[in-house]
Amino acid sequence: MALKTIGPKAAAALDEELMSTGSFSVYQLIELAGLAVAQAMFKLSPPSQSPNILVACGPGNNGGDGLVAARHLHYFGYKPTMYYPKQGKNELYQRLRTQLEQLKVPFTDDFHAALSKSDWVIDGIFGFSFSGEVREPFPAVIKALAESKIPILAVDAPSSWNIEEGPPSDGPGKDYQPGALISLTAPKPLVKWFKGRHFIGGRFIAQEVAEKYGFDVPPYQGSDQIVEIDT
Amino acid sequence: MALKTIGPKAAAALDEELMSTGSFSVYQLIELAGLAVAQAMFKLSPPSQSPNILVACGPGNNGGDGLVAARHLHYFGYKPTMYYPKQGKNELYQRLRTQLEQLKVPFTDDFHAALSKSDWVIDGIFGFSFSGEVREPFPAVIKALAESKIPILAVDAPSSWNIEEGPPSDGPGKDYQPGALISLTAPKPLVKWFKGRHFIGGRFIAQEVAEKYGFDVPPYQGSDQIVEIDT
Repeated sequence: MALKTIGPKAAAALDEELMSTGSFSVYQLIELAGLAVAQAMFKLSPPSQSPNILVACGPGNNGGDGLVAARHLHYFGYKPTMYYPKQGKNELYQRLRTQLEQLKVPFTDDFHAALSKSDWVIDGIFGFSFSGEVREPFPAVIKALAESKIPILAVDAPSSWNIEEGPPSDGPGKDYQPGALISLTAPKPLVKWFKGRHFIGGRFIAQEVAEKYGFDVPPYQGSDQIVEIDT
Repeated sequence: MALKTIGPKAAAALDEELMSTGSFSVYQLIELAGLAVAQAMFKLSPPSQSPNILVACGPGNNGGDGLVAARHLHYFGYKPTMYYPKQGKNELYQRLRTQLEQLKVPFTDDFHAALSKSDWVIDGIFGFSFSGEVREPFPAVIKALAESKIPILAVDAPSSWNIEEGPPSDGPGKDYQPGALISLTAPKPLVKWFKGRHFIGGRFIAQEVAEKYGFDVPPYQGSDQIVEIDT
């Protein structure tokens, strides 16, 4: 049975609906999404096994999820390091950044040096709204991720993949295949090309909203904010 | 060893500091607090044992925690019913209420009828900023809670208790002793008089902030948002 997915336009419309009709604040949604990312990381490898997590954040909400995840990782006992070279203009991002700075979580400009010291990487560079070109300074970052042996958890999408058509046919992301992915709210069509461990997070969708958008609320257990599913 | 606690003035200053220097949005803090309340409820009794939860909410942030908790309880598989007779004016509360209405969570005006059909009650009526008189319609509600055999989880404080001096010497809350309490961020001095199961939630305090306010970050485990401690 093929997994039901949600394309980029529908995912954007769903976000919009959650914040309009749904009355959610973006702060609530990003907090729950980022917490889910951190919980997936914990399930993949606890801080006793992999204390050093490099969190690579892009300029949009995917990066915001990474910023929130890093804060929770700190509380879970990890030592996150942030790579956040292009901060978005929204006040939201500055607040999320300040919350990390208050915890003395380091921000680095040198992705490659940080990568060499990391046990895991969280890829929060591009999410479901990505399309087109990978802009500077991210081509070299994605190339390094594609070539690295360090395990990677991608948020919503392996960065540079086309949301509907999967890995690009050329460019730095051509051979990028992260070991783990967390899809937020629902898997995107690109999961068809993804071969690693797959989690879903974002436990804030009503059954009837999921039906309207043509996907299923995943089988979350207990009070968990994430669920691992077969890909 | 006496548990380190935080009084009402310090708790208010801490909230203020989190939202100013700490750059937190109230939406983030209340989301994490409410999620912690729901997780404590799950630990106390899963929905298979106690599906029907009556969530009593007061006009302030304690009620807001209850509103958020109820939403997560819905996702966890419970059937929450809301008693929310005096909604606060802040837009925050209307948004949290709308989020529940979208899930078709019922709101009732008849506390006593709802109580008789409930398996557990969450007391989110008054929190750490309570002092003075219990105003209408809450005296009869607190009297019913004090007399009921239905188990209760109180949020931050058994409602009507003095935050520093515990149960009132007379009035409806005189004999009110809920079976469980979740203290948010840190226990309040009233825990000295509390005899039930005690959880702490609010995993968003930096070690140095806790030190400044004279309490300890509790020993949270793994990716849990709550921890049960001995009282």
